[in-house]
Amino acid sequence: MEGLTKIEDLGKPRVVIVGGGFGGLALAKSLANAPVQVVLIDKQNYHGFWPLLYQVATAGLNPDSIVSPFRKILAAQENFYFRLAEVLSVDATAQVVETSIGLLRYDYLVLATGTASNYFGDAAMERNSISLKSVPDAIELRNTVLSNFEQALQIGDVEQLNSLLDFVIVGGGPTGVEMAGALSELRAKVFPRDYRELDFKQMDIHLVQSGPVLLKGMSAEASAAALKYLTDLDVKVWLNDRVKSYDGYTATLKSGQQLITRTLIWAAGVTGATIAGLDPAALLPSNRYQVNEFNQVAGYTSVFAIGDIAQMAAADYPEGHPQVAQPAIQQGEWLGENIQLAMRGQVMRPFTYHDKGTMATIGRHRAVGDIKLFGKELHVTGWLGWVAWSLVHVLALVSFRNRLTVFLTWAWNYVSQDKGMRYIIGRTKSHIQEKDVDVKAIV
Amino acid sequence: MEGLTKIEDLGKPRVVIVGGGFGGLALAKSLANAPVQVVLIDKQNYHGFWPLLYQVATAGLNPDSIVSPFRKILAAQENFYFRLAEVLSVDATAQVVETSIGLLRYDYLVLATGTASNYFGDAAMERNSISLKSVPDAIELRNTVLSNFEQALQIGDVEQLNSLLDFVIVGGGPTGVEMAGALSELRAKVFPRDYRELDFKQMDIHLVQSGPVLLKGMSAEASAAALKYLTDLDVKVWLNDRVKSYDGYTATLKSGQQLITRTLIWAAGVTGATIAGLDPAALLPSNRYQVNEFNQVAGYTSVFAIGDIAQMAAADYPEGHPQVAQPAIQQGEWLGENIQLAMRGQVMRPFTYHDKGTMATIGRHRAVGDIKLFGKELHVTGWLGWVAWSLVHVLALVSFRNRLTVFLTWAWNYVSQDKGMRYIIGRTKSHIQEKDVDVKAIV
Repeated sequence: MEGLTKIEDLGKPRVVIVGGGFGGLALAKSLANAPVQVVLIDKQNYHGFWPLLYQVATAGLNPDSIVSPFRKILAAQENFYFRLAEVLSVDATAQVVETSIGLLRYDYLVLATGTASNYFGDAAMERNSISLKSVPDAIELRNTVLSNFEQALQIGDVEQLNSLLDFVIVGGGPTGVEMAGALSELRAKVFPRDYRELDFKQMDIHLVQSGPVLLKGMSAEASAAALKYLTDLDVKVWLNDRVKSYDGYTATLKSGQQLITRTLIWAAGVTGATIAGLDPAALLPSNRYQVNEFNQVAGYTSVFAIGDIAQMAAADYPEGHPQVAQPAIQQGEWLGENIQLAMRGQVMRPFTYHDKGTMATIGRHRAVGDIKLFGKELHVTGWLGWVAWSLVHVLALVSFRNRLTVFLTWAWNYVSQDKGMRYIIGRTKSHIQEKDVDVKAIV
Repeated sequence: MEGLTKIEDLGKPRVVIVGGGFGGLALAKSLANAPVQVVLIDKQNYHGFWPLLYQVATAGLNPDSIVSPFRKILAAQENFYFRLAEVLSVDATAQVVETSIGLLRYDYLVLATGTASNYFGDAAMERNSISLKSVPDAIELRNTVLSNFEQALQIGDVEQLNSLLDFVIVGGGPTGVEMAGALSELRAKVFPRDYRELDFKQMDIHLVQSGPVLLKGMSAEASAAALKYLTDLDVKVWLNDRVKSYDGYTATLKSGQQLITRTLIWAAGVTGATIAGLDPAALLPSNRYQVNEFNQVAGYTSVFAIGDIAQMAAADYPEGHPQVAQPAIQQGEWLGENIQLAMRGQVMRPFTYHDKGTMATIGRHRAVGDIKLFGKELHVTGWLGWVAWSLVHVLALVSFRNRLTVFLTWAWNYVSQDKGMRYIIGRTKSHIQEKDVDVKAIV
């Protein structure tokens, strides 16, 4: 057969997993001892721990400390095969996926493609803003923040200066809240040491949230504490408002307010990263695939979806599970068991979700958490929440090496009150160069 | 004055240093307590420890562990100012440098611009090869090596396969020798675990050296040992030969031999990174500025050059000091003293160089070194040389943080026999994509 991906045929059922995020990786691992061939396809050769990506963007962690190459994580798993490729479409009748490196036959196909940033059709916003969905995104943001200050040294005009010093973050979910906290910490402790010639009282951090509360989905206690912590850190929080337009310089809010900034961070929403070729009826208005309690995509028996891209109508989650790490990991592990049951001709078990809670950190020493333990919900805030958050995140990292690296880096940062990764290496958001910044201002 | 760089005028003599490599940084530090304003201009916002760059390219070290932001290194130095800019030309009569961010007046100008890769006018070589002069270079090389293997999995044709698996390194100096050793170590221990589907007996590493010995400039003992170690590691060393042409696929040697490779690493020579505006008579045929024993550029009293870009005719070095870290560091420190002498109206002291020796490592456990101690030259090789090399390089790193990071990473790599930074993040050498690789080969 021409055009087939070159890969060994083990003569065993082949499970093809598209995407190596939390769900895909958990599934691959759970099939370690199953009599199957596991083929993971991803556009990147590494798994990333994205909840800490904002720390890469704010010079607190090296990119390397939150990623692990798939081939390294699963080096000991003999039935594991990896292909660096993009999946273009699915032919469920032929049981074949079309990829950028050829066709690949499957017995079980699992979509674990996650989400992409949702700009709600605003092309100017997509072009002019920076999102935070990948390592290159985070590095670009870090480079841009640092380049802004290097350029600001040359600026005399007040508005031009503020366009470089001020930041607008759109979206009051965990990414937006944690990003705002980290930036305010840099403003207080780190940047004034590096840029003695700049006045950081002029640096404004704006957080714009369309709804009435931050961290929607968490408890009222957590939302209120997050708002208080950010206000204490002098972050300007705009609730019940949204950014109507942004041209790379002026962000215009629904309320009429105009914010001047060359750096707008887009953390306002995500949409499912879907794949061509499946029945459109299986795709819900949320752009997630409708799955049953076995994670089977509606209308298919051998096509599954897990994690952010899957929407399972459960009694306690009628609109699907939250698009965070835990449901993805649990569905991945559970599906690994179900595929093995199905192979033995046994009945698959319906998925049940165990919510362990949610946390978010805000700067140094403060976090909010709704922790579920023994059927009870605990609300932790402040210093205790911050310790819990740190512990949970270090332990959740994929490899011992990453755990050690992140722990040591955090300890170092904590003691030195510093964030050392202030390098401009690689791409900077290009609209900064395009804009007519008056870099030759006069003394 | 219009077009001036915006920078404080301290009312003190201003020392402008162009380039923050070993020489420029040493000079800036040595002026810490002098009654001057120090302005460092660099195209990057960080100092790099380039002798370890090949380890970034071969996944042994994080980029972050060998670089430090200038603003962080010199945060405590009150007379230090940094500008991220490119110097375009010098007007020595007006005592002004023209930069990408405006004009900058100086009292003392020090050129510490180092070198760039020398392709001897071969534009195809420059386009098709990868050099190793910067962090983006090293990351590009790492990405390319890893992408090659990911692509090789899809290839049936033997020649196409070898074009991806084989590597040609041009230049038998420290960079070429250390790079060849590191690649052979990856071939022996690391890659076979990651790519079980590939046969690494087919991976050839070629090292092409135009002269009769490796590590020219080191002792005959060191050169011979380096050749033996590389041969033991199954690196194919081509002495007295050179690459006449390379089109991105076929490297043709002077001897007529053709080597098929998509990855040619260019470490064959460097040329001075000169600046427009100075008297052409000051530039020697080696493309280095002729300086006197006070590092003054020929014909100038307030323009100095240090390190790789400077050529000082000393009794024991009639053609200038070797273009390595030590002369640059020593000239930087010495010039710091001389500028202070000159400011006090005292006579400057002629520079004397203290050669501490040279070392190069070849894979795990082996290094060669000519160490000068108490006027005697010691030749160390093998395991002892490797321990000495490791110690010297850890201690020579700029910050305690980098020292600790490199030490811990090396210890980890040593014990695990692994090199963990196998991520493809960012740019891959583009000719790989351009070439018509048959990625949809048939099983």
